[in-house]
Amino acid sequence: MNGLSGGAPGPAAAPPLAILCGAGAFPVAVAAEARRIGRDPFLIGVVGSTDAPIEAFAHVWLRLGEVGKLFATLKERGIGEIVMIGAMTRPEFADLRLDWGAVKRAADLAQLFRRGDNGLLLGLAAIFEREGVRIVGAHEVAPELAAPSGLLGARPIAQGDRSDIAFGARMLDSLSEFDAGQGAVVAAGRVLAIEAAEGTDAMLARVAELRATGRLRLKGPAGVLVKAPKRGQDLRLDMPAIGPRTMEGAAKAQLKGVALAAGRVLVIDRERCARLADAAGLFVSGFTT
Amino acid sequence: MNGLSGGAPGPAAAPPLAILCGAGAFPVAVAAEARRIGRDPFLIGVVGSTDAPIEAFAHVWLRLGEVGKLFATLKERGIGEIVMIGAMTRPEFADLRLDWGAVKRAADLAQLFRRGDNGLLLGLAAIFEREGVRIVGAHEVAPELAAPSGLLGARPIAQGDRSDIAFGARMLDSLSEFDAGQGAVVAAGRVLAIEAAEGTDAMLARVAELRATGRLRLKGPAGVLVKAPKRGQDLRLDMPAIGPRTMEGAAKAQLKGVALAAGRVLVIDRERCARLADAAGLFVSGFTT
Repeated sequence: MNGLSGGAPGPAAAPPLAILCGAGAFPVAVAAEARRIGRDPFLIGVVGSTDAPIEAFAHVWLRLGEVGKLFATLKERGIGEIVMIGAMTRPEFADLRLDWGAVKRAADLAQLFRRGDNGLLLGLAAIFEREGVRIVGAHEVAPELAAPSGLLGARPIAQGDRSDIAFGARMLDSLSEFDAGQGAVVAAGRVLAIEAAEGTDAMLARVAELRATGRLRLKGPAGVLVKAPKRGQDLRLDMPAIGPRTMEGAAKAQLKGVALAAGRVLVIDRERCARLADAAGLFVSGFTT
Repeated sequence: MNGLSGGAPGPAAAPPLAILCGAGAFPVAVAAEARRIGRDPFLIGVVGSTDAPIEAFAHVWLRLGEVGKLFATLKERGIGEIVMIGAMTRPEFADLRLDWGAVKRAADLAQLFRRGDNGLLLGLAAIFEREGVRIVGAHEVAPELAAPSGLLGARPIAQGDRSDIAFGARMLDSLSEFDAGQGAVVAAGRVLAIEAAEGTDAMLARVAELRATGRLRLKGPAGVLVKAPKRGQDLRLDMPAIGPRTMEGAAKAQLKGVALAAGRVLVIDRERCARLADAAGLFVSGFTT
């Protein structure tokens, strides 16, 4: 704790922070950032979802369905805030091995699983709130994790790419109504790929493959990856994120660049992203709409 | 020719019909259907795109860019109608090896290649019309090739699937504005995949893979493939089509069924599609919105 002593309404000591870890390297990156700014991160690994090494931090492993154990652990440690980060495979309700704490809440839970992803997450958030645990966004804990407005790397944006960014952003916005579309690849007004359940990495790999096999014939660098959250999406629950792997994927797909909704997309390991982008000749930039 | 003799404005002899053959088996299926109903099909194979054996029919092979040769061939044979069918890899303008007939029209052609797919096709259609060749839809030549309203196979549609069909159709409709989205997979209100440049087969393979690798955890049959043309799409130029391979893909993705915009999606080899669907426990049905 790095609390300041004395003096009424002074800055409060940073409270401990739980991090519910989905797949990929993002949770550990957020934990490192939390530690750096003096929050005391406690990582919750989910068996079958978390695949990063969380052992470098205080942590616990849980199974999906161990809802009672989750809340007991948080209470025990006096944790009132949690960040959810990294992709979590959505289970079927029937597959959950419910502990007693989950069984008590089973009617609520079953109800949630009839909703879309966004609905499911909103419902989970309400359950957390009822238990006195506030869900916070990684960008709230560490604002420097969010994409800034403007360039992150050295490569500038060409004029034609700006219209692809605007076009992609408009399309993603219109997909929001259907709780779909956090990413798309647009090349000169043409939609090459739209992201749904497969995620950004798989979408980029698809574009790379379509080009490699000649099914998409494009000369040289072409296309922009546009990432933005769904309109009205609760960023605490599901915030789009990119990292070094995204840059590698964009380079393999021979894109011209990567455009991120400023303040609304997480950039994990910004320095390395910028370096990789520069090396591959990609622009990386936050945009505002 | 099966023309009737004598008698003023009687039914005209069925004129010969050219078929511009894209990839896959659809062009040959349409040619067989054209022959069955007494049109005299002349197939145009495109080097690098056409992959079906077109030698069973009168035919010619052309390279993309051999525009002059194309029109000369059509004129020579007195062909005033052409069907375009099967996926055509969109080339880069700079890759075209233009013959003299193409060079004469190069300014127009270059202009077209700055447009989206739909724009490109509309422009090509205008060029054909100017040459006195009318582009007709396969469904106009042979209406029985289009999806009917209602079931094609034995399997009925469950109530929940109906809302997925309506949801998917609405989403595809809203993507029309972006000249994207001829297909999507929706499972209980959740969008699993949206089709862009990869095509339907690749989209279905993706869903199958996401399920096989456990990234998508769904129990048993789940999801509906919804196919519809873009709003305002000129069906003569680019009509969504499904065939036996689509059924096999849907079966591998463990879907519940396949829903087609009635009258606006081609069904190639309807009998076999229905048999495959029945065998896999899939419904296949045309829907109206």
